[in-house]
Amino acid sequence: MNALVTGGAGFIGSHIVDTILHDPSSEVVIFDNLTSGRSSFVAAATRDRRCTFVPGDLLDANAVRRVVKDAAPDIVFHLAANPDIARGALEPTLDFQQTIVATFHVLEAMRLARSPRLVFTSGSGVYGDHPDVATAETFGPLLPISMYGASKLAAEAMISSYAHMYGLTAYIFRFANVVGARQTHGVAFDFIRKLRSDPRRLEILGDGHQSKSYIHVSDVVSAILFVLEKDSEPVNLYNVATDDYVTVRWIADRVRELMGLPDAQLIFTGGARGWSGDVPVVRFDLSKIHDLGWSARQSSRDAVRRSIGEMLSDPAGPRP
Amino acid sequence: MNALVTGGAGFIGSHIVDTILHDPSSEVVIFDNLTSGRSSFVAAATRDRRCTFVPGDLLDANAVRRVVKDAAPDIVFHLAANPDIARGALEPTLDFQQTIVATFHVLEAMRLARSPRLVFTSGSGVYGDHPDVATAETFGPLLPISMYGASKLAAEAMISSYAHMYGLTAYIFRFANVVGARQTHGVAFDFIRKLRSDPRRLEILGDGHQSKSYIHVSDVVSAILFVLEKDSEPVNLYNVATDDYVTVRWIADRVRELMGLPDAQLIFTGGARGWSGDVPVVRFDLSKIHDLGWSARQSSRDAVRRSIGEMLSDPAGPRP
Repeated sequence: MNALVTGGAGFIGSHIVDTILHDPSSEVVIFDNLTSGRSSFVAAATRDRRCTFVPGDLLDANAVRRVVKDAAPDIVFHLAANPDIARGALEPTLDFQQTIVATFHVLEAMRLARSPRLVFTSGSGVYGDHPDVATAETFGPLLPISMYGASKLAAEAMISSYAHMYGLTAYIFRFANVVGARQTHGVAFDFIRKLRSDPRRLEILGDGHQSKSYIHVSDVVSAILFVLEKDSEPVNLYNVATDDYVTVRWIADRVRELMGLPDAQLIFTGGARGWSGDVPVVRFDLSKIHDLGWSARQSSRDAVRRSIGEMLSDPAGPRP
Repeated sequence: MNALVTGGAGFIGSHIVDTILHDPSSEVVIFDNLTSGRSSFVAAATRDRRCTFVPGDLLDANAVRRVVKDAAPDIVFHLAANPDIARGALEPTLDFQQTIVATFHVLEAMRLARSPRLVFTSGSGVYGDHPDVATAETFGPLLPISMYGASKLAAEAMISSYAHMYGLTAYIFRFANVVGARQTHGVAFDFIRKLRSDPRRLEILGDGHQSKSYIHVSDVVSAILFVLEKDSEPVNLYNVATDDYVTVRWIADRVRELMGLPDAQLIFTGGARGWSGDVPVVRFDLSKIHDLGWSARQSSRDAVRRSIGEMLSDPAGPRP
């Protein structure tokens, strides 16, 4: 494939880039402003002649048009977004700009260049707060409780309209929490950072009972490529998660254990939510992607444990 | 109530303004850039000291902040939007700016001024294209086929997140096609305009079988005020439509009849959709608002007939 990856130097994006380059006939253009992505994440990839890094910002509509026109991709992986969910509650402009405005610029550039396929990484945040419901893709009403979730839903809506009006084929994935090497945010990431700063105590946002699915980035990449092969509706919408759920407290215990700090004191800030807009209990109905023939190879437990190991052994991992 | 009405000089907005002023204790500030609204629509209202007209554009974030801060409304009716649905397919930037960006500016201004209540006029376009389903508010997945529908869904999503994060109480109405005096767009409006230009023939976009609900603006105002009285969730989401449906062909016949031009030749452009993004068959499940105790007083048939009469007798009505 000839791919353009926005946020291609970021956490999920850089794994997508690496995987695409495994196919010797593929080429990749990375478009990234390096605000959360890092050039080190794509250092190996960009040594390959088939991989080009174009520095640029999705808020610059002309730059986006230029890169889509020049790269003439047969598929765009649009992964760039604000990865700091909690910060979006304090600065709603962040998700508005980096997801809603940025996605509109990508869509307009694709419309003008007649690009045929788009992959978009959405998330469970579109569903809002439903602790008692395993939400399927058909769940409604969609009433997000954070700008992170709202901006993902807004982007989905625009993508759907472009798919129907302009003949784009769109793949929208509502992911669980993604973990693994190169992650730059997230609960275990924060815990490692905090314990490296002060090994005696660990502050936990909320009461620790938040219970969610954590999926390893390798399973995320596998799900995307699997669905790309198997489905081709105008809009292909899939939940992607694991079948098990772990609590924030359980993650804190694994981080303490794997860092050799079992006695670090846990200090809970209290309340069900980690931050305004946090959805404390997330449950997915995965029937649709299971029926298509895909399941995560790693459970939430495995994914979280593995990601803690990956972060701890990474010299560029979480730092105080 | 002390209300701010964006798009208050527009079709629905000006009727809301008139109704609010019936209550002698109410005050209204109209915020409108007069691109589709008209000062003549609020000429009577603005002669009342309790009504202030502030000219301004919702794309000017500072102007929006200023008017929300100065008016200090206890309720904002956010009605401003691009009323030309068909044009949005050719210029997607229009709905992006005038619904998505504009709504974000309203929400930010309300957050900063701690405004407590918001009314938003959404529409059936959020549901996408489902000719065989009477869509309830819980319908999913929401895959709009036009930027008009997508931008309404994007606005709903942002409003929901602000309601949950910042304590706003939000009222979101998914309306059928609204008709009545002062309408500036719409199918009957177009037919009158065309027949006034050439009384011998009438071009109809599509095959004329498009079948939708048409609700009179007086019923729209009544539904909004009814729900405001009866419900107070963080997000109050309601379909608002009539219980019957009429075809575009039926409307063409009524316009010919009421204009005294029964022999004007009907020329169909063909195809199920009137334009790219048009949803030809729209069906609502109205159980939620019926259960709350509200129903439209006028059927689609009555509403369309009445609106044709109102447009024909209006010296400022549809002109070639």
